[in-house]
Amino acid sequence: MTSPVRVFAPASVSNLGPGFDVLGLAVERPGDVVEAECSSGPGLEILEITGDGGQLSRDAARNVAGVAAASVLAALRARGLATPPVLPGVRLRVHKQMPLASGLGSSAASSVAGAMAVNELFGAPLSKHELLPHALAGERAAAGFGHADNAAPCLLGGIVLIRGYEPLDVLQLPVPPALRVVVVHPHARVETSRARALLRGYGFPIEQAVANLGNLGAFVAALYRNDLELLGRAVEDRMVEPLRTPLIPGYLEVKQAASRAGALGCSISGSGPSVFALAADDGTAETVAGAMRRAFLDAAGLDSEAYIGPVNAAGAKRVARCA
Amino acid sequence: MTSPVRVFAPASVSNLGPGFDVLGLAVERPGDVVEAECSSGPGLEILEITGDGGQLSRDAARNVAGVAAASVLAALRARGLATPPVLPGVRLRVHKQMPLASGLGSSAASSVAGAMAVNELFGAPLSKHELLPHALAGERAAAGFGHADNAAPCLLGGIVLIRGYEPLDVLQLPVPPALRVVVVHPHARVETSRARALLRGYGFPIEQAVANLGNLGAFVAALYRNDLELLGRAVEDRMVEPLRTPLIPGYLEVKQAASRAGALGCSISGSGPSVFALAADDGTAETVAGAMRRAFLDAAGLDSEAYIGPVNAAGAKRVARCA
Repeated sequence: MTSPVRVFAPASVSNLGPGFDVLGLAVERPGDVVEAECSSGPGLEILEITGDGGQLSRDAARNVAGVAAASVLAALRARGLATPPVLPGVRLRVHKQMPLASGLGSSAASSVAGAMAVNELFGAPLSKHELLPHALAGERAAAGFGHADNAAPCLLGGIVLIRGYEPLDVLQLPVPPALRVVVVHPHARVETSRARALLRGYGFPIEQAVANLGNLGAFVAALYRNDLELLGRAVEDRMVEPLRTPLIPGYLEVKQAASRAGALGCSISGSGPSVFALAADDGTAETVAGAMRRAFLDAAGLDSEAYIGPVNAAGAKRVARCA
Repeated sequence: MTSPVRVFAPASVSNLGPGFDVLGLAVERPGDVVEAECSSGPGLEILEITGDGGQLSRDAARNVAGVAAASVLAALRARGLATPPVLPGVRLRVHKQMPLASGLGSSAASSVAGAMAVNELFGAPLSKHELLPHALAGERAAAGFGHADNAAPCLLGGIVLIRGYEPLDVLQLPVPPALRVVVVHPHARVETSRARALLRGYGFPIEQAVANLGNLGAFVAALYRNDLELLGRAVEDRMVEPLRTPLIPGYLEVKQAASRAGALGCSISGSGPSVFALAADDGTAETVAGAMRRAFLDAAGLDSEAYIGPVNAAGAKRVARCA
């Protein structure tokens, strides 16, 4: 029998302003942990989920970590690895360490951690890039479509662009060393399905698309140039942000507070309600985080947590079991 | 009196696939030439226009080169330069050396050449970046709005991204040294106003915008990485190309011919009917150009010219008077 393994997969900020469904970055924390161990049963089961307040299914076929893990297990078996009776089954423990429906890529983190944990359990025969489609199988179970703008940065680390899905074309972009990311999570929920439903059937005027195209291009160029001022100017979303602003109480006040406190740019993290800001140093990031939290409280009566740090370069990783 | 000057401004390919109204590049040829000389009259007049088949207005206030030139002249006078009676007026000769309504940035080339010729006439007190708004004044006269995706690359050279207009934010992107551009101009006309009218009031589904955002980001990243394969994959327009395809007889056949002949990517140049393709070397570019011309002839009975070369790094420039 192989030894049990434990994998940490970080939260991620997708969209990043102009890049709806195509841009995302990983943060240092929060994140989810999945433990995997071999079992005598033939299939994959979830022994335990903690930190979800009882909201997630323990049925592995209906849980994103379970779906992603089962997808990896099937792939390993197809390669002649992890074949019964030598390694008959896998048991998972899922430790949710971030809020659900928060805009922080919670389902992606669980999917990635589940997929990677099974791969690590059997000696990591698959590369991270090979694991990505399996993590997306988990995302598909959660959202109906396997969007990669959370799962890819969560798994690979860094700042990631999804060029397209047919075939899946994922680019890792340079990360400016001084860049700091502030993510503020107010105590409110926005269901991704509701945030996406707003966009279904909506027709965007060409001018809005052009604005986002210009900013998306500038965002990518700014990363290669290590130009934080340009990066901040490029965090501008004329398409989706206006539609989703009403879902987040106090959003405009929070954005204004971030700007006044010195943020380079600020927008909605994923489908919200978390809001992210970019800053050029730790001190400014702290100031921005404080201003954003105060604005959530003053404008909408919402408590919040703030997470501050550099972009997470490593992405998902195996951690010591007693971490 | 200062000596007369002569300025060449190149054709340009805008949109470049995913980047509607935000991306453009300059080519080596064709291009327009504007000559400027001082006159005794107080204002700006157009002495002569050649090469337009009599289609353009000789009234300087209704001609893009005249409008751009007058805008520069007014700016120089506002700075205390080019003030009567020492330098009382300017006369222009405009030599159109590229087809109108061809998708090659014809009005931008005339605007840029007009603006730059007046500036050169008075010793070039304005930088190229300072000239850009004056060239856009000419574009505004032609199209109602001063789009910069032709004028900026025409003036500055290279491959240019327009982040936004308020304020005008223009980025020059790296040019892969091996990149070759093929532009094929079929003997057909597409009025920019008609090609733009198709887009007015049209609502783009989010999925189309996402596809263009992913490709736009990949296009910019490919330039920084000097990755021509990626650049070719990124020349994909899910938004505007499908709407404009019916305006260009034989377009789908031409695109397929380019691909089969080894083009990295192929799409409509500006609002068409010219079609551009990218290639990784001169030999492939020649083959691609031949295949595209044959396809225009076979599929639509259209004769065409092809222009092949590297990206024009210099942009608009002063040339010898007898060139």
